[in-house]
Amino acid sequence: MRIALDAMGGDFAPGPIVQGAVQAVQKDADMQVVLVGDQAQIEPLLASAGNVRDRLEICHATQVITMEESPAMAFRKKPDNSISRCWQLMQQKKVEAIVGAGNTGAMVACGFLLRLFLKGVKRPGIAALMPTQQGLSILLDVGANVHPKPEHLYQYGVMGSIYAKHILQRDKPRIGLLNIGSEEDKGNELSKDTSDLFRASPLKDQFIGNIEGRDINKGVCEVIVTDGFVGNIVLKVCEGVFDFVMKVVGKEIFGALKTELPLAQMALGNIIKRYDYHELGGAPLLGVDGICIICHGSSKERAIENALGVAAKHAHAKLNDLIVQELAAGG
Amino acid sequence: MRIALDAMGGDFAPGPIVQGAVQAVQKDADMQVVLVGDQAQIEPLLASAGNVRDRLEICHATQVITMEESPAMAFRKKPDNSISRCWQLMQQKKVEAIVGAGNTGAMVACGFLLRLFLKGVKRPGIAALMPTQQGLSILLDVGANVHPKPEHLYQYGVMGSIYAKHILQRDKPRIGLLNIGSEEDKGNELSKDTSDLFRASPLKDQFIGNIEGRDINKGVCEVIVTDGFVGNIVLKVCEGVFDFVMKVVGKEIFGALKTELPLAQMALGNIIKRYDYHELGGAPLLGVDGICIICHGSSKERAIENALGVAAKHAHAKLNDLIVQELAAGG
Repeated sequence: MRIALDAMGGDFAPGPIVQGAVQAVQKDADMQVVLVGDQAQIEPLLASAGNVRDRLEICHATQVITMEESPAMAFRKKPDNSISRCWQLMQQKKVEAIVGAGNTGAMVACGFLLRLFLKGVKRPGIAALMPTQQGLSILLDVGANVHPKPEHLYQYGVMGSIYAKHILQRDKPRIGLLNIGSEEDKGNELSKDTSDLFRASPLKDQFIGNIEGRDINKGVCEVIVTDGFVGNIVLKVCEGVFDFVMKVVGKEIFGALKTELPLAQMALGNIIKRYDYHELGGAPLLGVDGICIICHGSSKERAIENALGVAAKHAHAKLNDLIVQELAAGG
Repeated sequence: MRIALDAMGGDFAPGPIVQGAVQAVQKDADMQVVLVGDQAQIEPLLASAGNVRDRLEICHATQVITMEESPAMAFRKKPDNSISRCWQLMQQKKVEAIVGAGNTGAMVACGFLLRLFLKGVKRPGIAALMPTQQGLSILLDVGANVHPKPEHLYQYGVMGSIYAKHILQRDKPRIGLLNIGSEEDKGNELSKDTSDLFRASPLKDQFIGNIEGRDINKGVCEVIVTDGFVGNIVLKVCEGVFDFVMKVVGKEIFGALKTELPLAQMALGNIIKRYDYHELGGAPLLGVDGICIICHGSSKERAIENALGVAAKHAHAKLNDLIVQELAAGG
């Protein structure tokens, strides 16, 4: 399969981004990656690609949208930016998937502007992986849709459930609605109307009702549905608390140890490798006609390699066909 | 000073709740606590109170609102509940403050029903303490006001700032608005209108604009303003991630150690004691005419003792006078 990668997107681009692509194609003999961005910068980074060089192409784009730029303004000022070029390749069916660690707002907005939505989908949403005591769950939407309607949230349940089943291998995933209390009458209008939709739908047996913030990491459900405003804040709060606690643990516990310090350091390293929100391999923008994986701005080689792998898995599972079928069946 | 304590509120009531009161009056010779609840259960718990017994009274209440009950229904069905009795004591000026670890919704709703608001305050809000890399910050509102208007959020900034200054001893506290990006045009209408209010106010020099979820624990500001829906979820997500990471650390790091395991266990114990969201001593409902401290449902002796101490500190600092003055001055 062929994937376009925004080689210029992310805090560390292009070096580690391109290297992530090299590693991904080394692992997957069927993968071809189109590196979108400044040819002069990308070309030398491929010098060491060796026998996978022929599965790495460059698609030159002269402009880069920075992390801070407002998408609407940036699209006008920078028509030849690497993000738009990625989306155009997908629209023209030249690639099956796109992956990028650049400006998230721009990644999403470009898909929305092109209206590259799957049949039946009202609004795509970003699904983030959340580590829990029971394995990975997904939280969506984490920022694509700040003013969702109940039917958008319901569709996130449908798409999230398919993702959890086929990518996370969770049979009959449970769906929870993030709210401020578990009682049925809790929360705002959006929550109440969304609950009603789930309860009257084919997903009613998977819907466990309201869940609270502290339930996420307990793993009470595999799919956590919320609006993009709350979801984005929750995702970043999780990252923030994780980083904070890791720092405190490093200082306090390591400070207390002597001879066994290296053992503790290795264990902490493993925890960070396994649970770090920066490393979880990218969040899919579910509901687009194609595959779009959005990576954390701080992504390096491993995160990009993972994200390209996730895109391939997504394609092989034919997730989009399943989503279209499920929505057409009134799911 | 005299404080009413809901002796029946919380997952472990009444034993550890009453014991917390005993410890608090032992520490503070000026404190008297009115234990509100079932006399038959409370009386025997005071047998060991010794020479502080005369500063512990019982106010009998026959009913208890459970953690799961809907407040509106509960008030109708249980007029003699301990939460309403606490509020009535404060309304009648028989106590200066109330403290409870019971049903948070009922604690808040009772104050709202009595309209026991400070002069100039439009809606009280709950302020939660958040541990950060720079010390404690406060997050408000965390659940009293799910549909706030911009002026409510602005008033949370005013009250939070006074709290941070006089209780947390933070000079010129910085105020941030929780949002999904730091750019000015980010977020929903509420965020934008609230930003405008802050920028045109006497607090404009303290207002640092939008902050993201991951900034909270970095301690970029001492006061974090948000609506009660987002704030409640964020607070509980923080608790959830903290508990989750502590479990993982316990398993992975402790599992890697041998001789120095006890040192690491002691260090982890210290971290939990210092940062555990369950132990931070209660969240004030700011803006009520009186003092109301809401404790975590899982509160035991130490949390209740801390909360009673916070109520006393709140009274001594004359926070309410400062809030009324600041709001009257257009703050």
